[in-house]
Amino acid sequence: MQAIQKSSTQPGLTYLSNHPAPEPTTPHDVIVKVKAAGICGTDVHIYSSKASLMNRMGPKLSLTIGHEFCGTIESFGKGVEGLEVGQFVSAEMHWTCGQCYNCRTGNGHWCLSQTVGGIDQPGAFADYVKLPASAIVPLPVDLPVQVAAYLDAIGNSVYTARSVDVVGKDVAVLGAGPLGILAVALVRLMGAKRIYVTDISDYVLKVAKDEGADYVFNVKDEKQHQEFLKMVVADPAKRGLDAVLEMSGAPSAYSDAFKVLRMGGDFSLLGLPSGDMPVNFSADVVMKGLTIHGIFGRRIFNTWADMLALLQGEFLKTAMNIVTHHYALKDCEKGFQTKLAGEGLKVVFYPGGLPDAQ
Amino acid sequence: MQAIQKSSTQPGLTYLSNHPAPEPTTPHDVIVKVKAAGICGTDVHIYSSKASLMNRMGPKLSLTIGHEFCGTIESFGKGVEGLEVGQFVSAEMHWTCGQCYNCRTGNGHWCLSQTVGGIDQPGAFADYVKLPASAIVPLPVDLPVQVAAYLDAIGNSVYTARSVDVVGKDVAVLGAGPLGILAVALVRLMGAKRIYVTDISDYVLKVAKDEGADYVFNVKDEKQHQEFLKMVVADPAKRGLDAVLEMSGAPSAYSDAFKVLRMGGDFSLLGLPSGDMPVNFSADVVMKGLTIHGIFGRRIFNTWADMLALLQGEFLKTAMNIVTHHYALKDCEKGFQTKLAGEGLKVVFYPGGLPDAQ
Amino acid sequence: MQAIQKSSTQPGLTYLSNHPAPEPTTPHDVIVKVKAAGICGTDVHIYSSKASLMNRMGPKLSLTIGHEFCGTIESFGKGVEGLEVGQFVSAEMHWTCGQCYNCRTGNGHWCLSQTVGGIDQPGAFADYVKLPASAIVPLPVDLPVQVAAYLDAIGNSVYTARSVDVVGKDVAVLGAGPLGILAVALVRLMGAKRIYVTDISDYVLKVAKDEGADYVFNVKDEKQHQEFLKMVVADPAKRGLDAVLEMSGAPSAYSDAFKVLRMGGDFSLLGLPSGDMPVNFSADVVMKGLTIHGIFGRRIFNTWADMLALLQGEFLKTAMNIVTHHYALKDCEKGFQTKLAGEGLKVVFYPGGLPDAQ
Amino acid sequence: MQAIQKSSTQPGLTYLSNHPAPEPTTPHDVIVKVKAAGICGTDVHIYSSKASLMNRMGPKLSLTIGHEFCGTIESFGKGVEGLEVGQFVSAEMHWTCGQCYNCRTGNGHWCLSQTVGGIDQPGAFADYVKLPASAIVPLPVDLPVQVAAYLDAIGNSVYTARSVDVVGKDVAVLGAGPLGILAVALVRLMGAKRIYVTDISDYVLKVAKDEGADYVFNVKDEKQHQEFLKMVVADPAKRGLDAVLEMSGAPSAYSDAFKVLRMGGDFSLLGLPSGDMPVNFSADVVMKGLTIHGIFGRRIFNTWADMLALLQGEFLKTAMNIVTHHYALKDCEKGFQTKLAGEGLKVVFYPGGLPDAQ
Repeated sequence: MQAIQKSSTQPGLTYLSNHPAPEPTTPHDVIVKVKAAGICGTDVHIYSSKASLMNRMGPKLSLTIGHEFCGTIESFGKGVEGLEVGQFVSAEMHWTCGQCYNCRTGNGHWCLSQTVGGIDQPGAFADYVKLPASAIVPLPVDLPVQVAAYLDAIGNSVYTARSVDVVGKDVAVLGAGPLGILAVALVRLMGAKRIYVTDISDYVLKVAKDEGADYVFNVKDEKQHQEFLKMVVADPAKRGLDAVLEMSGAPSAYSDAFKVLRMGGDFSLLGLPSGDMPVNFSADVVMKGLTIHGIFGRRIFNTWADMLALLQGEFLKTAMNIVTHHYALKDCEKGFQTKLAGEGLKVVFYPGGLPDAQ
Repeated sequence: MQAIQKSSTQPGLTYLSNHPAPEPTTPHDVIVKVKAAGICGTDVHIYSSKASLMNRMGPKLSLTIGHEFCGTIESFGKGVEGLEVGQFVSAEMHWTCGQCYNCRTGNGHWCLSQTVGGIDQPGAFADYVKLPASAIVPLPVDLPVQVAAYLDAIGNSVYTARSVDVVGKDVAVLGAGPLGILAVALVRLMGAKRIYVTDISDYVLKVAKDEGADYVFNVKDEKQHQEFLKMVVADPAKRGLDAVLEMSGAPSAYSDAFKVLRMGGDFSLLGLPSGDMPVNFSADVVMKGLTIHGIFGRRIFNTWADMLALLQGEFLKTAMNIVTHHYALKDCEKGFQTKLAGEGLKVVFYPGGLPDAQ
Repeated sequence: MQAIQKSSTQPGLTYLSNHPAPEPTTPHDVIVKVKAAGICGTDVHIYSSKASLMNRMGPKLSLTIGHEFCGTIESFGKGVEGLEVGQFVSAEMHWTCGQCYNCRTGNGHWCLSQTVGGIDQPGAFADYVKLPASAIVPLPVDLPVQVAAYLDAIGNSVYTARSVDVVGKDVAVLGAGPLGILAVALVRLMGAKRIYVTDISDYVLKVAKDEGADYVFNVKDEKQHQEFLKMVVADPAKRGLDAVLEMSGAPSAYSDAFKVLRMGGDFSLLGLPSGDMPVNFSADVVMKGLTIHGIFGRRIFNTWADMLALLQGEFLKTAMNIVTHHYALKDCEKGFQTKLAGEGLKVVFYPGGLPDAQ
Repeated sequence: MQAIQKSSTQPGLTYLSNHPAPEPTTPHDVIVKVKAAGICGTDVHIYSSKASLMNRMGPKLSLTIGHEFCGTIESFGKGVEGLEVGQFVSAEMHWTCGQCYNCRTGNGHWCLSQTVGGIDQPGAFADYVKLPASAIVPLPVDLPVQVAAYLDAIGNSVYTARSVDVVGKDVAVLGAGPLGILAVALVRLMGAKRIYVTDISDYVLKVAKDEGADYVFNVKDEKQHQEFLKMVVADPAKRGLDAVLEMSGAPSAYSDAFKVLRMGGDFSLLGLPSGDMPVNFSADVVMKGLTIHGIFGRRIFNTWADMLALLQGEFLKTAMNIVTHHYALKDCEKGFQTKLAGEGLKVVFYPGGLPDAQ
């Protein structure tokens, strides 16, 4: 079968056209024929051989990557119940142990022994992928493939947007990549009052506006940056925002967040900053009464349930719009070059070749 | 009347024996005759002329300080209802505006225009103090004066302990000053499983142990420090603590907290670190799924209600034990020297002279 | 001034054209010139001399009724701060004591000594109404008068809709009066998945559908009733609804709710059933793990803040649509006859005569 | 092996001395050798052939009953991981499907397809019991057997006590059977202020007092009943209790609860009333702003984790004290007669004969 692998610690990836397909090895394995798979930011970091990921993956190279995908069930071990060959599915790619305290108390996303498909074990940039049955998520048959291709990422955004109360609230989304734009649409349809978005690309800010942002600011432009800081503290009854969703990982976004949050505000962190960042905890967290929420993965399967429900409404349109590039899996290099060039938003691969309708 | 004032930006305080007593100037003013008042860490910073406080207080010097106290109502303006002359009371010294979003939605402790008695307006290290009626908290007549003298501080600790779920949980309290020791007693009586305490003074660690800590560590001793780090991750089902209450403001405590908290743990911050502190948000907050709670003041008056209820039970004993030094108000210099020398725990002043029974 | 009073225990109301206007009697009184006021279900019960209300109001007849309104500040006592003559305002008509446990802990809507304007004290079906300053809610100047006229009622609905998590959830609203239809619009814009509505009037069910309901059922028709019961348990993963908002007070609605809620569902009660109702708590509450939320009034002022924010978005359109009848105050009898005939939805009175634009 | 079965719809049970022992039939089965097992109220209802249980069990007679127990692992299927032969364990006897919405979102106690060991499938009043591996709960080796014998029941009480905030609160426990007394001890050690207990037996009320109740009332005595109603509304700031835990199922307890709860109080229901009960929802739930919590089973495994942690502290002593009668399994009739006579509290069976130390 085809597979895209990280096969050395050098930048780049390897496209294999004739890799052995996986088969069930335990009674609980499920083999899924991949229909479509999205490139995640993590995949770009793997392409670029970012140190932290190479340290983690190092001993396991070569490894098939990819952890956002959908497909149909091809086969499964004899211990699997409740699934059918041919069924349209995706999967949670944080595979959980089921035994630790967090797993046993409804917080599997904090599993202490989780294995990540596409990083620790072979992933979904391939014709077939092997998964534990407990990770499988059945999908509605009418969910568009291009959206089903990146549910893992949508789930990150849904979990972040759900981490704070947004009904009637003033919210900023810092960073308008795919996850940020999804978050804009989400807080809009969950009842936010005013939504502010910052980024350093006019292109994505325009999309954010189209998807529901009230105000967008290109903070590379210091004038717009100042305008943002000034505007959000204008309400004398609040003098700041109720909530900030940090989706960029940029230190400047953190610095902005501490400035614009009101006393008692909520600060949700999904973006991954590099290295250490200096913070004045006394002034910016303790004396401001902030609550900071570290958002890791998606709640398993609470977030999945919410997400699939939301995708049956108008949120689907945003999730469709986010996918800007479609490639056959064999053209994976083009897909990564698109992302590296900062063009478009979500790139989706199709192992079986480009579908007609895209 | 007597009053202790900050009258210059130089270290030290001034004891006045003949300062004019306050009188009600608005219909909602209440004059309280002070029975006893505790020294807070902030008061020590004022004594030492810490820059941030001098910047805040500067324009208002000379000012009577002190914001933990109890006393009896001496008189009040004609708009005051529901209070009586002679009534035993304390007061919330964060005076709120009642008009901003936070005040109107049950979060007055996050008031956007709060005035702090003893910092912005004359405080309670005096024979009499003037307060807004809305800040008054009636006390049970049998609450011991030495405890009623520092309810403001006890409230900080109650709010911190109440910010996380401790029932059956493993909790660390970092910093065993008066607030830390109170927190130990609180999480004990609220059902915590194991309580770990760190500090750099053997004296306070012994008190913490007496008040309910299971394990105490003098982290000045690197061996004990390592033992702490190792012990708290020993449970294979959790590999870390459910919650950390940071009561020290020490950067090393933050660093420890990020090491010892389990995936999905809670980190509550009451201590006030100086300046910036470098934090690896990716590794230590986002990917760990932490929730960080900035704790400012006390909930008005939720925390007060909880605290007064708890002080009718065994928590009272701890609150009594914390008070190690008693001085007449005129001996205020001795009181501050005690604190500056790091001796004892809570120091209480008595404007009317030392009570017989203490 | 004009005033509508309940002046005897007989059905009907009295229109007075020359009643003395109120004046501030305490420093905290505010006199508001009423622009518009809505008829609440309670007002209809007062018109009809329902026993429970007559028992409560009896000793105070004659009394000006009406508790949903907006207007402009005419004058105020000298203790009032932060308000201006001419300001556009409404008011929370549950006047709270500010002293009890619930008031002091952010739950004034549960005040133990509340006075209700329009039931216990003179209300707003008049040219002027006197209110405590603490009850006043400033309004945005561009809020349409016909909506500002019944914010009290809108707040009931917002509080009910906010009492459960609706994001991605299946929700039923039982009873499609004004409050039910507002609830439909609210749960829609807060992210509900599917919304089911029952009532016994085709007219209101049509409005509910227009305002966002997915499925409506006239449960007077037993066939539709059965269809409802069958449809909502069709999802094999849930076998029932996540939440039911009871807005009718009908015993049959309770009975339906217990049938259609899933294990662990939420049941929020705003409607007021008459007398006792038999419930099988074992089967329908305990063994089903239900949570039942009694909804009284509106959170003061959390719900008001949420509501005013939501009315700056698309919710305003629904709130506009709900107002079907407009009368001058002197035509009050027509307004009540409209309600008694079960025609239309919200009826609004205008003491200054009908505005041109309605 | 020995087994106690319900073998007809007539009252009584059958003791078998030579019943075939279970063996693993699926790869995930675990066989546990039973050390001790408690009689639950449900077992008494099965003994007495209560209609609702006979309807449920009817088609499956004869069936070994019993669902509170502990023991050691005897053997298991080859798909079982993480367990060892000889390990000391108990099990959640609500066996969950793992597939429904509730199971997948951390609420397995609300599983839509649960099977109950001892009612739907053979239970633990036997030498051996067969269980799904996912239901097994490893126990600390030093947990006393007589307490490990009825963890299922303790979990009911822990879940109920945890359903409301008790820190500094006034709480009533209605019904002082084993679960009620455990709840008294729990709310005591979780920080409740005052605890009121009602029952109709002086014997259990005395135990409740010993285990931490502040006030106990035999409500069979109308004078004590009135004293209870009067005392709990005496606090003018609250005029009622913060929370009521209903552990009796008695209609009179419901009626009391509605009288004694304050505005905005919490009412948690564990007891199982027979048939319908009339409730005035308007006056007693809606206008009082109550929240009612139906408590079914125990949270899987959140409650188990909390419970095992609490049993490492002073709660163990109460859990020990509750066990008043010990019988060999073959003397099961004596055990049930003890319960039917209303003597003692918890009765525990020992299939291997009475341990020396009890």
